[in-house]
Amino acid sequence: MIEIFTTGGTIDKVYFDANSEFEIGDSLIGELLAESNIRDGFAVTGLMRKDSLEMTDDDRAAVREAVGQCGAERVLITHGTDTMPETARALLSVTGKTIVLMGAMQPARMRRSDAVFNIGFAWAALQLLPHGVYIAMNGEVFEAGSVRKNLKAQRFERT
Amino acid sequence: MIEIFTTGGTIDKVYFDANSEFEIGDSLIGELLAESNIRDGFAVTGLMRKDSLEMTDDDRAAVREAVGQCGAERVLITHGTDTMPETARALLSVTGKTIVLMGAMQPARMRRSDAVFNIGFAWAALQLLPHGVYIAMNGEVFEAGSVRKNLKAQRFERT
Amino acid sequence: MIEIFTTGGTIDKVYFDANSEFEIGDSLIGELLAESNIRDGFAVTGLMRKDSLEMTDDDRAAVREAVGQCGAERVLITHGTDTMPETARALLSVTGKTIVLMGAMQPARMRRSDAVFNIGFAWAALQLLPHGVYIAMNGEVFEAGSVRKNLKAQRFERT
Amino acid sequence: MIEIFTTGGTIDKVYFDANSEFEIGDSLIGELLAESNIRDGFAVTGLMRKDSLEMTDDDRAAVREAVGQCGAERVLITHGTDTMPETARALLSVTGKTIVLMGAMQPARMRRSDAVFNIGFAWAALQLLPHGVYIAMNGEVFEAGSVRKNLKAQRFERT
Repeated sequence: MIEIFTTGGTIDKVYFDANSEFEIGDSLIGELLAESNIRDGFAVTGLMRKDSLEMTDDDRAAVREAVGQCGAERVLITHGTDTMPETARALLSVTGKTIVLMGAMQPARMRRSDAVFNIGFAWAALQLLPHGVYIAMNGEVFEAGSVRKNLKAQRFERT
Repeated sequence: MIEIFTTGGTIDKVYFDANSEFEIGDSLIGELLAESNIRDGFAVTGLMRKDSLEMTDDDRAAVREAVGQCGAERVLITHGTDTMPETARALLSVTGKTIVLMGAMQPARMRRSDAVFNIGFAWAALQLLPHGVYIAMNGEVFEAGSVRKNLKAQRFERT
Repeated sequence: MIEIFTTGGTIDKVYFDANSEFEIGDSLIGELLAESNIRDGFAVTGLMRKDSLEMTDDDRAAVREAVGQCGAERVLITHGTDTMPETARALLSVTGKTIVLMGAMQPARMRRSDAVFNIGFAWAALQLLPHGVYIAMNGEVFEAGSVRKNLKAQRFERT
Repeated sequence: MIEIFTTGGTIDKVYFDANSEFEIGDSLIGELLAESNIRDGFAVTGLMRKDSLEMTDDDRAAVREAVGQCGAERVLITHGTDTMPETARALLSVTGKTIVLMGAMQPARMRRSDAVFNIGFAWAALQLLPHGVYIAMNGEVFEAGSVRKNLKAQRFERT
């Protein structure tokens, strides 16, 4: 069983014409998994709808608590990309689980998006990695504590 | 020959992760027409990239001048929805042409968008309507000067 | 009120891996109209699921009867492209209605398809054309009785 | 460097209206990887365009030779799903490489497809699995020699 916690971020952004802007909407992950022929073996819980630049230490504590308390050994967290390394670091104290954080550079609701590839990539990472905390982005696996987002290149890289 | 002038609006918005927001990008209309099997008989000119709430009288004068001076008898204008009725009214002084304004409530780059339907709808309207200025939105044809955008219902309607 | 009758054709083809082939599936037109922000003012009735090369005179008679007996003044018929001109001709005896036949060269379920553009195009044609029978394909309106499908060019043209 | 060999299968099927059917077209994998923000670190070679039910022992020998002779340590093979287990078994004699076979139940060119999820899943599997031959389908990793396609359930499972 894979436990999925959604926290917001670009991946779940929706365009609202009334406001002439995007806002974080319902997570699309359940629908995308179903389209990809994955219909069971997971549960989705929405924890918050935050742009990761707006996440606070309290938010990260809430994520850590939810992850630590869930019964699953494999946990996927969808998250905004900007502060994904910080939340990953905050989860290092959780033991006995393989925890993978992922997100997307383009909302999943766009015609062209890295979201579905990233979900598939993370799905395999969850099954093959030993216990620990990881970021799965731009087709690579990074260990929490030694990864950062290179803002200029718009990619994640090892520190 | 159909002359297409693009002015911006929701229809051409792109998501830029670096800025955590949507901005108006290149018009997608040429690509969408090609996907719909329409490859000739039209030309596309980008006039500006404005959210229609930011269009000024000078902008509308520029649109009117471009439309009035082009050789085509049929003109399609892609435009933000919020002030489409104002620009339509500003074009009433142009004679000898069928002018149709259209846009979309969801960017054409989204998986679910009204953009392509609206383009097809406007394409037929251009060929079947007599000279004059029209708005083609939510599957209806409206005459310039007697149409408004109902913000609450997020639809265009006759005044 | 627009009455929509679906008869099959490429537009509604679905890929079935179990048979390693496509088959005509449920019509997608209701879902595509909803995605395009058109949610009412129409009804959809599935008449048959035929590749148009397999339509018989009895099939065309069934279509003519359904169209003639429906209460709507505007009727949209989705149809395979190969024998669309034949069915259009068979409908010329129906009076008091604007009848538009359309289909697509690529199934609506493909990422790149002319289906949605064609639906939007036909939607406008239905509202703007006088009573009669028409084919709306490749961004043009053709009158029944003077149109054929150019197999080599894969386009409709006037005869 | 990941070496990608394409052999055909449902994943690369294209719809040809002229023939009223789906045929295997150019592999879409390079385009899908670019949309997913993966632009380097791999090469794509088309070996054949076969429905896997039509693959012969000679075809499998050709695949084995190409894989064995390439310089990469990680090899991805896109393949029809019906006889993927047979080709996987035929590759067991290749040493010193992590070889992952994948495909899709719905062509990558459909709006709803498992193709992109499967590519992302396989991309991670290639980086995390030890040398050997594997099938990556329906969100699971299977070892060559102990996997079959359950035709009724339309899923892969361990034997």
